[in-house]
Amino acid sequence: MRHIITATVVNHPGVLAHISALFSARGFNIDSVTVGRTEDPAVSRMTIVAGGDDQILEQVVKQLRKVIDVIKVQDLTDSKFVERDLMLLRVNVAPSKRVEVMEIINIFRAKVVDISPIDLMIEVSGPEAKLDAIVAMMQQYGIKELSRTGCIAMKRGKLQ
Amino acid sequence: MRHIITATVVNHPGVLAHISALFSARGFNIDSVTVGRTEDPAVSRMTIVAGGDDQILEQVVKQLRKVIDVIKVQDLTDSKFVERDLMLLRVNVAPSKRVEVMEIINIFRAKVVDISPIDLMIEVSGPEAKLDAIVAMMQQYGIKELSRTGCIAMKRGKLQ
Repeated sequence: MRHIITATVVNHPGVLAHISALFSARGFNIDSVTVGRTEDPAVSRMTIVAGGDDQILEQVVKQLRKVIDVIKVQDLTDSKFVERDLMLLRVNVAPSKRVEVMEIINIFRAKVVDISPIDLMIEVSGPEAKLDAIVAMMQQYGIKELSRTGCIAMKRGKLQ
Repeated sequence: MRHIITATVVNHPGVLAHISALFSARGFNIDSVTVGRTEDPAVSRMTIVAGGDDQILEQVVKQLRKVIDVIKVQDLTDSKFVERDLMLLRVNVAPSKRVEVMEIINIFRAKVVDISPIDLMIEVSGPEAKLDAIVAMMQQYGIKELSRTGCIAMKRGKLQ
């Protein structure tokens, strides 16, 4: 089952190595990892998307909680949450195909961030499935380069 | 100096641990790391933003190139490139402040992705500096939760 885990961690060199070793020691397949800044310069927030055996993952999360530099761990799997992934995508687009490709870009509410005579660079954000869909649509033109941040996620607010 | 390094890597458990250990062994301060999927399921693309001594970083990049699971490494620092960071931000917003906060959200072309009677969750993407600016503007209302993906980056196309 797919799990989204967030961890706030103290910004020490070595924390990321430590945490990723926890996962790889059990042969865990990590789909994506992000480590970004927070409002506190001393603290980062990690988001890990991993699939695999639920029980083993539960053990990894327990070990994660014991790491000194880890402040808080959340497994969002059973909560209501918002997830977002961001992608930059460079697609082959000859001038004759530009109108056709722009139509797809508009449907996905994506943005063109760079253009050359032979290609376009597109920025798009959304849940993973949306990004997978635009990749599938663009494959017919030829994808030259693709970079995704991986998911970040946050629990929805309580409607009381 | 701030460096943005991208690396395409084979998707093995352990690659991330290996690469982050390369950085932490030299006490390198990583600002952000993302590891996201590419169009090839066997390959991930990492983006590392790191500051520090240029010469030491050059050594780390050389070592990175020697790692078997690393396919390609690029240091984008001296190129023209597009960088994007993505943020989810939960801000305290009482109903009486909502119009005021929505105005700021529109100026930054951010999006509201969740609402409760006492707060808003905002999605915004852009270069790091833009995200820093919206964080600074929202601090007066009270930031409850913040998650950033960290940067991804891509070289601009050639205008021939």
